[in-house]
Amino acid sequence: MVQPGSRANVDKLAFFEPIKGEMAQVEENLRKVSQEGFPHLSRLLEKSLLGSGKRVRPAITLLASHFHERDSRNPVLMATATELLHIASLIHDDTVDEAPIRRGQPTISSTFSKREAVLVGDYVFARSATFVSDTGNVRAVRRFSEAIMALSSGELREIATAFEWRQATENYWQRIADKTASLFAMGAENGALLSGAPESTVQGFRAYGHNLGIAFQIVDDILDYEGDAAEVGKPVGGDLLQGTLTLPAILLMERKPDANPISAICQDKDRGANVKRALQAVAALGIIPDCYKVAEEYVTRAREALAPLPDIPARRSLLMLADYVLVRRK
Amino acid sequence: MVQPGSRANVDKLAFFEPIKGEMAQVEENLRKVSQEGFPHLSRLLEKSLLGSGKRVRPAITLLASHFHERDSRNPVLMATATELLHIASLIHDDTVDEAPIRRGQPTISSTFSKREAVLVGDYVFARSATFVSDTGNVRAVRRFSEAIMALSSGELREIATAFEWRQATENYWQRIADKTASLFAMGAENGALLSGAPESTVQGFRAYGHNLGIAFQIVDDILDYEGDAAEVGKPVGGDLLQGTLTLPAILLMERKPDANPISAICQDKDRGANVKRALQAVAALGIIPDCYKVAEEYVTRAREALAPLPDIPARRSLLMLADYVLVRRK
Repeated sequence: MVQPGSRANVDKLAFFEPIKGEMAQVEENLRKVSQEGFPHLSRLLEKSLLGSGKRVRPAITLLASHFHERDSRNPVLMATATELLHIASLIHDDTVDEAPIRRGQPTISSTFSKREAVLVGDYVFARSATFVSDTGNVRAVRRFSEAIMALSSGELREIATAFEWRQATENYWQRIADKTASLFAMGAENGALLSGAPESTVQGFRAYGHNLGIAFQIVDDILDYEGDAAEVGKPVGGDLLQGTLTLPAILLMERKPDANPISAICQDKDRGANVKRALQAVAALGIIPDCYKVAEEYVTRAREALAPLPDIPARRSLLMLADYVLVRRK
Repeated sequence: MVQPGSRANVDKLAFFEPIKGEMAQVEENLRKVSQEGFPHLSRLLEKSLLGSGKRVRPAITLLASHFHERDSRNPVLMATATELLHIASLIHDDTVDEAPIRRGQPTISSTFSKREAVLVGDYVFARSATFVSDTGNVRAVRRFSEAIMALSSGELREIATAFEWRQATENYWQRIADKTASLFAMGAENGALLSGAPESTVQGFRAYGHNLGIAFQIVDDILDYEGDAAEVGKPVGGDLLQGTLTLPAILLMERKPDANPISAICQDKDRGANVKRALQAVAALGIIPDCYKVAEEYVTRAREALAPLPDIPARRSLLMLADYVLVRRK
């Protein structure tokens, strides 16, 4: 098992090796979508789709489809849909958050307008649904729709419960399950489902995706406390300033239940100064390594979900990805 | 045939009579959806779903399903999806347009926030897709996804081509087909499809929905020129001020190709005064009755698409609806 915060040996080439040909088809699908529609729409699509995405989610869908006799047509359609859905939700999130930058690039809402960002996000959501429906599998469509509901519900919960420090813990786990893990879980489940794998394998992949997604989001939340802006691509402490209470804030409140900068921030007492105090206290009390330990527990659960499966290259890639989640820096 | 602008004898009770029981199930579905999710989400949903909608679109879906041996389960699911999709697109349109009022009620984006409006719109889009996927019919899902693509593409075209008076005509027909007729066409097609009707009937309903939707939008656009604000629920001349060139503006440019207030507005010459001039010229030149004549042609095509079908109560309702489109005031 990888040590929290350490650098695992993640080999990107080895990771994508079992699905190289299929990923190329996914990229080709994305490229085609980026050129459709009337001129202004295709400009918006091109800017949205051909970014610097890591393509982790479609890779999971494809890898999950490798454990059963199969042809790759439906998994490729589903992987394309998974990435389009992810992109659509990023476009809306960035619009809602008024984020100027994503992965070092100006966002759609800042390059064009919020109005166009809302509408092109809708278009990409719908386009992703066409790829799922082309699999001909209604259960896959159902799971896909539920994932979009969970994504938007999780984002709404984040807004609705901002600064609610008393219910921070329960809100946190529900929110990250909805806003992040739901897409990983659906992508993995549908990949296995569309390969015709037996139900136990399909459920195993749902568990893998869910736990991986939770770990992924915990690390994301850690990076908001310890990353530097250039590396992570957004300013440190941003979550706290917005009242989004994540695992480091929750652990800080547990350690200092009586007087802590988190509840002060939530009661609107000198926010700027208290955000600084919170970042310092999180560092001083060793809270970051503890957060990594929690993330690692979820990574362990994700790995365990793959235990019954044969040791094929796809399984090794999925285990590699689970380790990568703990060491990624953006 | 109804005279343009006249008052047809539209009997709302008679119109809904063949689908009374099924519409009650649709309302019950909407009521259930409006209560789901965590407290703040259900507040948003309740406000979104239980408004004063006329429920025209789900009625078309249900009526279109009455021409073949059937059970009503799938048409009711599809009708629920049709209405949810319509509501989701209204939420996003009002957000994008910064509209304060819809049907005399404050919009979601003005009552809550734009952020919440974007996200609850996403939730309702996704929720509508779950109802379609519960029909188990992947073609219905495909058509449904395509309709969302068309809706957002049409709205984007409206933004991208605002004030482009030289291409106004071709932009107009493509835009209203996408932003309005696509949903009517899909709802009618899927209603017939899910009843198990033969392909010729399914295509007939697609044609009915498309032509009805075009007529519906033309009348909507007329109301922006001649309705009064209290009756229509929004200020007159709003389209022109935003650079949205609709049929009355197009006919005015055709009648006065050399000097007209429309091209002046589009070249940003004294917009307020030229909007007034345009409204006066449209009235003085008798352009409104001509627009109604165009709408009536589409209503005739919609009626003709139903010609091969048996004279049952559902058909009489659909013909009644076609006439109603020409006389509605909001």
